[in-house]
Amino acid sequence: MINLGIIGAGRIGRVHVESICTQVPGAKVKTLADPEIDGVLICSSTDTHASISIEAIEAGKHVFCEKPVDHDIGKIKQVMSALEKHPVKYQVGFNRHFDHNFQAVQEAVAAGEIGQPHIIRITSRDPEPPSIDYVKVSGGMFLDMTIHDFDMARFLAGCNAEEIYVQAAVLVDPAIGEAGDVDTAVITMKMENGSLVAIDNSRKAVYGYDQRVEVFGADGMVSVSNDTTSSAVISNANGVTGEKPLYFFLERYMQAYAKEIRSFVNAIQEDTETPLGIVDGLEAVRMGLAAKKSLEEHRPVKISEI
Amino acid sequence: MINLGIIGAGRIGRVHVESICTQVPGAKVKTLADPEIDGVLICSSTDTHASISIEAIEAGKHVFCEKPVDHDIGKIKQVMSALEKHPVKYQVGFNRHFDHNFQAVQEAVAAGEIGQPHIIRITSRDPEPPSIDYVKVSGGMFLDMTIHDFDMARFLAGCNAEEIYVQAAVLVDPAIGEAGDVDTAVITMKMENGSLVAIDNSRKAVYGYDQRVEVFGADGMVSVSNDTTSSAVISNANGVTGEKPLYFFLERYMQAYAKEIRSFVNAIQEDTETPLGIVDGLEAVRMGLAAKKSLEEHRPVKISEI
Amino acid sequence: MINLGIIGAGRIGRVHVESICTQVPGAKVKTLADPEIDGVLICSSTDTHASISIEAIEAGKHVFCEKPVDHDIGKIKQVMSALEKHPVKYQVGFNRHFDHNFQAVQEAVAAGEIGQPHIIRITSRDPEPPSIDYVKVSGGMFLDMTIHDFDMARFLAGCNAEEIYVQAAVLVDPAIGEAGDVDTAVITMKMENGSLVAIDNSRKAVYGYDQRVEVFGADGMVSVSNDTTSSAVISNANGVTGEKPLYFFLERYMQAYAKEIRSFVNAIQEDTETPLGIVDGLEAVRMGLAAKKSLEEHRPVKISEI
Amino acid sequence: MINLGIIGAGRIGRVHVESICTQVPGAKVKTLADPEIDGVLICSSTDTHASISIEAIEAGKHVFCEKPVDHDIGKIKQVMSALEKHPVKYQVGFNRHFDHNFQAVQEAVAAGEIGQPHIIRITSRDPEPPSIDYVKVSGGMFLDMTIHDFDMARFLAGCNAEEIYVQAAVLVDPAIGEAGDVDTAVITMKMENGSLVAIDNSRKAVYGYDQRVEVFGADGMVSVSNDTTSSAVISNANGVTGEKPLYFFLERYMQAYAKEIRSFVNAIQEDTETPLGIVDGLEAVRMGLAAKKSLEEHRPVKISEI
Repeated sequence: MINLGIIGAGRIGRVHVESICTQVPGAKVKTLADPEIDGVLICSSTDTHASISIEAIEAGKHVFCEKPVDHDIGKIKQVMSALEKHPVKYQVGFNRHFDHNFQAVQEAVAAGEIGQPHIIRITSRDPEPPSIDYVKVSGGMFLDMTIHDFDMARFLAGCNAEEIYVQAAVLVDPAIGEAGDVDTAVITMKMENGSLVAIDNSRKAVYGYDQRVEVFGADGMVSVSNDTTSSAVISNANGVTGEKPLYFFLERYMQAYAKEIRSFVNAIQEDTETPLGIVDGLEAVRMGLAAKKSLEEHRPVKISEI
Repeated sequence: MINLGIIGAGRIGRVHVESICTQVPGAKVKTLADPEIDGVLICSSTDTHASISIEAIEAGKHVFCEKPVDHDIGKIKQVMSALEKHPVKYQVGFNRHFDHNFQAVQEAVAAGEIGQPHIIRITSRDPEPPSIDYVKVSGGMFLDMTIHDFDMARFLAGCNAEEIYVQAAVLVDPAIGEAGDVDTAVITMKMENGSLVAIDNSRKAVYGYDQRVEVFGADGMVSVSNDTTSSAVISNANGVTGEKPLYFFLERYMQAYAKEIRSFVNAIQEDTETPLGIVDGLEAVRMGLAAKKSLEEHRPVKISEI
Repeated sequence: MINLGIIGAGRIGRVHVESICTQVPGAKVKTLADPEIDGVLICSSTDTHASISIEAIEAGKHVFCEKPVDHDIGKIKQVMSALEKHPVKYQVGFNRHFDHNFQAVQEAVAAGEIGQPHIIRITSRDPEPPSIDYVKVSGGMFLDMTIHDFDMARFLAGCNAEEIYVQAAVLVDPAIGEAGDVDTAVITMKMENGSLVAIDNSRKAVYGYDQRVEVFGADGMVSVSNDTTSSAVISNANGVTGEKPLYFFLERYMQAYAKEIRSFVNAIQEDTETPLGIVDGLEAVRMGLAAKKSLEEHRPVKISEI
Repeated sequence: MINLGIIGAGRIGRVHVESICTQVPGAKVKTLADPEIDGVLICSSTDTHASISIEAIEAGKHVFCEKPVDHDIGKIKQVMSALEKHPVKYQVGFNRHFDHNFQAVQEAVAAGEIGQPHIIRITSRDPEPPSIDYVKVSGGMFLDMTIHDFDMARFLAGCNAEEIYVQAAVLVDPAIGEAGDVDTAVITMKMENGSLVAIDNSRKAVYGYDQRVEVFGADGMVSVSNDTTSSAVISNANGVTGEKPLYFFLERYMQAYAKEIRSFVNAIQEDTETPLGIVDGLEAVRMGLAAKKSLEEHRPVKISEI
């Protein structure tokens, strides 16, 4: 039995507690003070992730850390150093790797079903923007929201990014612009395997959480659409109408959240690599910082510049 | 906390145990001998359903009984009599009422979104036939498999059936015919509200469990398609290919099984009606027996004849 | 160059004139008095089909006759006798054989892609009922509208029907019932190859012309959906909405009408069999009459009774 | 009756001749020498478009010119000057404006159904690359193939482009790279109304001609999928398989070709503006040249630089 402590009592922390209680056999939640704690889930605010990670690592506890590890590359490298000295399990919370749809795409690509990937398209749009207070501390849309898409590009391409270019704007809410951020973006990347990536983001899709990917390759294409509550379709004088996508990440990724914790627990139990390590956390942040630089300097930016 | 005992250690019994342990807050599984048992789930073979039901009812235990309650109307009426004397909660295991797709259809119909229902189409095909040994004790396809569709017709139309006509054949496996049963059927019904029903059944759909309904009415149509593991679609030189339907009932209805037990537990906790009572169990069996009679006598049979 | 005369100046006659002028190379429309007329298209009212057919056949003209050839088996047999003496080309206007979707289904079935057919489902619903005046002379829904579906069952099964059972009602408009007809039906058939058929009909689908078929067989299923003006889908706060089916037969089958005339002209030019002969016209009417008998006598009726 | 002469006897010239003969009432094809010629369709090689355009304009003939008008802005401006002196009708052959799917999208956007456009996604992939000989004289992928997508962006956004950035590669065939061209691209644009555009191109999609667009706006999204020969779907042990997209532009855009010629003829008959004038031809070429410059200089390029 693996004993896990949860740090941070926000929405995502509660999601993990519920998963562990009902869907993660072999693990249970304990208070942090308990000396029998095997690992911690860091679900507190981003600015605390790195320091708590290091503390936990040094105490010999396994760590599951929500994304992003930090907005600062230096701090992530400190976590890496700690891990070198104390090789506990470390997993970053890129939950979309565990989504049934994206897994099916990744598996098809990895199995060679579409041949060498040429073009990866990622659509990622939220149903509504966060509060302006949150926007101000979020690190900007690229480190807060697009970071999942950067990670997705790596997941699907099976390699790192080489270069990034951002075209972005404030189209949803001028207050987001006043807070120094953008809310709409089209992002181009070149991956190390030569494939090209097009990401499009919006902070507000009135029809719900829009999360689709498509990988086009030498031998075909694999794509996924959104999930809905049911497949019900109503045909009437107004048209043929199906349901909107599931509303937001809690609805869409509930199963994925449980799966990522099971994979973390499993890595502890079996003493194997976690599926998403500190390097994955690092690379996604580098891409986010490159995106910010591209927007500021209005030019394509090499990841190696970061 | 509601304490539940499970009778029958087959596949469906194990499904319910797992649901209760992980997805039914407020209930737990206890051994049957435990005097604190509040209710029982009868998951044993059909021929034992009625007598165990009566025993449990007389002992003041709430009962969740797998379908069908019995193949014999007389025995179901004995259960009804026992319930009159000992008014415990009684729920029949028509799990499809709790499926997200069929619920969406039923809610659309009940909300009047398609107007008065005119035509109800139900497709229900298994991925593979049961063993011939099972076929022999199953009561025949209509009481074993189609009974779910009979219940679905009542669920969607919101009323009882009036008349039934069966056209059936042995097209899948001659051994099924030798065992005295059929494996393929097209069934017509007239419901008490005047709507017409077309059910089609097969014991073997090579592409998986095919479970679809469509209700056509004065103001429109509502329909649902099958569920799949993911929405992944591969486009290549051979065509554009999506996933097959989920393989069989355990895959398709896992969530529905948990929901039906939650609703049973809830009815106990809140002292409300169960959503599917003994009358629902009775009516579906009457339809099954009418179907058998229609096949034998090659004519439309009124439900009132049963 | 094949010279064709058109009899009947209604809607369908005008459709054929337009097809011949723009989409049937090798044919042109001439007045009926012209001695160079090679063939005639009979698009007048049903009660005139047989006598005009016979007249034309005896004059050595090829005949394309709209469906149904007649409501009376005897008169159809007179046409057959005329054809035996004067073997001109004779084609019945079952245009749906030439629809791109139904052709794809028929070809898949004929090519063995789904194995032996077990269940054939045909949905055929009009967007609005005809006038009551038309209903009165139509011969009833089965000979006027369902006759296309009877023909479709033969087309897809590749054989004749053996038995038919009708469950029908007046649900759309009581005036249709007062005129002695029905407007909603679910029809079961058994075909000579053992496959079972379920047809459902309505005179009024508020969302447009609903024309779908599905053939389920030992090795799989092939199905088609409706055509629309475009594939445009709008996602907004109300749902995900696509276009309704094309409104009615002129919109849906315009290409099929041109193709059937091309096939008729081709049979004349190449001196080959027409794809739909008088026997096809006869069998569909027999099925329609069996359906009427089944409704009247409330029992399954063998086609051999007609 | 409008008399039209065709210049160029290639594939597209033959398409227009067939359209005029069968689907453009009120127009006929005449030889070029005929003094009664009202207009010409220029379907010869791109390097001849401008000079033939000018000759025809000066002779007072209306002109329909295939895209692109020229690879050189100066020559297009010469055509514009000729038109100022001799105001005949001039239409550029951007056939996709007349495609039923793209028209539905454009109409939805123009009608405000999705609100202010924020993101426009255009996928445009050919089934196979042209010959290397053709690649060498094509002006490069952006002026030959992507030019349609540049025009589509203007059509859907309802305004001109402001800036463009290209990420492109040779992933399909090294010989294309040796000929100095690319075969795969992801292109970002900013339009004058602030909307962002993502185009993705490939010279080789093994599943056929992939032509989709999606416009996402403040109040919703409108998208279209590919056309197929039929809606037939086969479900079997391998999955659920529909047809591939129509093979290439002749299959996909046959109706659009006829419609664009009808609109040209109509503009002559009614003395109205053609739907696609010389300015549309000019703007698309400017975007193509900006794309080339962006690729060469590896930076975002303003359209005003061209």
